[in-house]
Amino acid sequence: MRAAVLRHGAMVVDEVPDPVPGMGQVLVRTLACGICGSDLHFVKHGRRMSELAAHSGVPDRLDFERDIFMGHEFSAEVLECGPETLAPPPGTVVTSIPGMLTLEGPKDLAYTNEFAAGYSERMLLSAPLLLKVPNGLDPRHAALTEPMAVGLHAVNKSGIRAGEAALVYGCGPVGLAVVASLRTKGVEPIIATDFSATRRRLATTMGAHDVIDPRREPGIEAWRRIDGVRPLGIFEAVGVPGMLESALEDAPPGARILVVGVCMETDNVYPIFGILKELSVQFALGYDPMEFAASLQAIAEGELDVAPLITGSVDLDGLPDAFELLANPDSHGKILMEPSGR
Amino acid sequence: MRAAVLRHGAMVVDEVPDPVPGMGQVLVRTLACGICGSDLHFVKHGRRMSELAAHSGVPDRLDFERDIFMGHEFSAEVLECGPETLAPPPGTVVTSIPGMLTLEGPKDLAYTNEFAAGYSERMLLSAPLLLKVPNGLDPRHAALTEPMAVGLHAVNKSGIRAGEAALVYGCGPVGLAVVASLRTKGVEPIIATDFSATRRRLATTMGAHDVIDPRREPGIEAWRRIDGVRPLGIFEAVGVPGMLESALEDAPPGARILVVGVCMETDNVYPIFGILKELSVQFALGYDPMEFAASLQAIAEGELDVAPLITGSVDLDGLPDAFELLANPDSHGKILMEPSGR
Repeated sequence: MRAAVLRHGAMVVDEVPDPVPGMGQVLVRTLACGICGSDLHFVKHGRRMSELAAHSGVPDRLDFERDIFMGHEFSAEVLECGPETLAPPPGTVVTSIPGMLTLEGPKDLAYTNEFAAGYSERMLLSAPLLLKVPNGLDPRHAALTEPMAVGLHAVNKSGIRAGEAALVYGCGPVGLAVVASLRTKGVEPIIATDFSATRRRLATTMGAHDVIDPRREPGIEAWRRIDGVRPLGIFEAVGVPGMLESALEDAPPGARILVVGVCMETDNVYPIFGILKELSVQFALGYDPMEFAASLQAIAEGELDVAPLITGSVDLDGLPDAFELLANPDSHGKILMEPSGR
Repeated sequence: MRAAVLRHGAMVVDEVPDPVPGMGQVLVRTLACGICGSDLHFVKHGRRMSELAAHSGVPDRLDFERDIFMGHEFSAEVLECGPETLAPPPGTVVTSIPGMLTLEGPKDLAYTNEFAAGYSERMLLSAPLLLKVPNGLDPRHAALTEPMAVGLHAVNKSGIRAGEAALVYGCGPVGLAVVASLRTKGVEPIIATDFSATRRRLATTMGAHDVIDPRREPGIEAWRRIDGVRPLGIFEAVGVPGMLESALEDAPPGARILVVGVCMETDNVYPIFGILKELSVQFALGYDPMEFAASLQAIAEGELDVAPLITGSVDLDGLPDAFELLANPDSHGKILMEPSGR
């Protein structure tokens, strides 16, 4: 079968071995797979990320001399079950957290030498992790379960409550997922900032009450003008150096900062800002399986309309170009890879 | 009367106007006042601190061209009440949070151009803020109410619970107050690190289960050796550049970091460590009035034995030298200023 893999620092499409389902595994046909900002980061900074992850106690088994499979925001159709495996019948549309249960313990499906992932025509999934996509939900929308779960998790981790205010720095897919989840939770006002007009429009669609171009007005000043009194949660979804320091400097006394943007470089911060204002900084990554399931349910029941987030689609051969395109992501929300084309 | 004041960047003892109590105020005679690490910081970095505080929204009214009164860890004896003021009778031993209620709102007594503070023979306090020192408690011990409240507040803010583990970086007075409060809360093990053998001995006295010289073994490795499994709270009570980054780098996944050391310079951090391990960082400053009262009560009832923390005493004239001495604080816990000498 064909797959897009990371090989010597670049995405290439090539023939790879056909996956064969073992016990507890299900062979699926990929229907749609979102391109995640982390994947772009990974192509650039993968080795360093892997080093830092190993340094943080995450087991590091990635071999950059071999192909690395990627693609962790997918929906798929069941083709065939492994031996002695209970799973939905062929033809069922499913999604799953991007992980594989093995006899050696759970393994990552987001970045792996071992298993084909979402940027492949077919892949193996663990039967116990499968979630059926409720009847009728567009598999393209089901593919957004994963990024929306990231937003839900960040909002849960922040401890923000209905009636409090939120300031969201960055309206890429993560920032937009945060906005959507804040709206569902009854947070008001939600003030979202981004340099891109397209992304600000998307933020409004996803539930932001106010959108701000930080070149015209700093986000924190917008918050002071619009609200200025309610407890404030600041969500950092940009992930470039300087953002954490800005958040510490901007935050009003007692504010909570939730960092969900992945910054790979150092940030030079003044701890004294945190101290004088008794700030708290919570870092967030991923989601738990319940949040993933809740995210699918919210999309399937129409609580969360993810359709506007999808601003492009490519087939497998178009994936390397889409990675290039997203290096300047201003005009894009989420681009989906659909192996069969559209 | 005489007072030690900050004048042109140095502590000097001089005659200052006698304070006269107004309505709601009480004139007291200072019995003991602890020298706080923040005061040493302030002599060095006061202007910058004041700028950063103003930048953080704290009203800045300090005039560095005029004398600045300091001393915020005090006990005192009531001499005289202002007009129409309800207060304990003369001779009562009291303490108070270092603040003054005025018609313009509450004002700071820790660093002020306006009111004589604890490094003075006499001072004014706000009658509604007075706490009677329970009968028989040594006023020298009552003067430690304030620093112990800082430790209690940091522990409360951290959310740490009985049965969880704590790693305390730095065994100066703040770190020691944290250790004491952790012990009262039932946290175990409490692992405290400091370069100074004297301070490590004090940490053991105040309740640390294990003390570590970080030149011999990094604190985090000591935690792995001693415990390594319970939820961990890391308390940063050193306050020099590099400590926040160390804490982020050292912390195991899901750990909470409580920053109570006041770092005046920048710290170059890797947000990615926070993200990969979903850390939380809570900054803490000061205490609330209930925590202050609880701290006095704990000392008065013998739950908290602060006597070992007092490693020196000077009179008013000895205060400038004590500031010099504490610039190399290795062999000291808390030095008290007692205006009448000992």
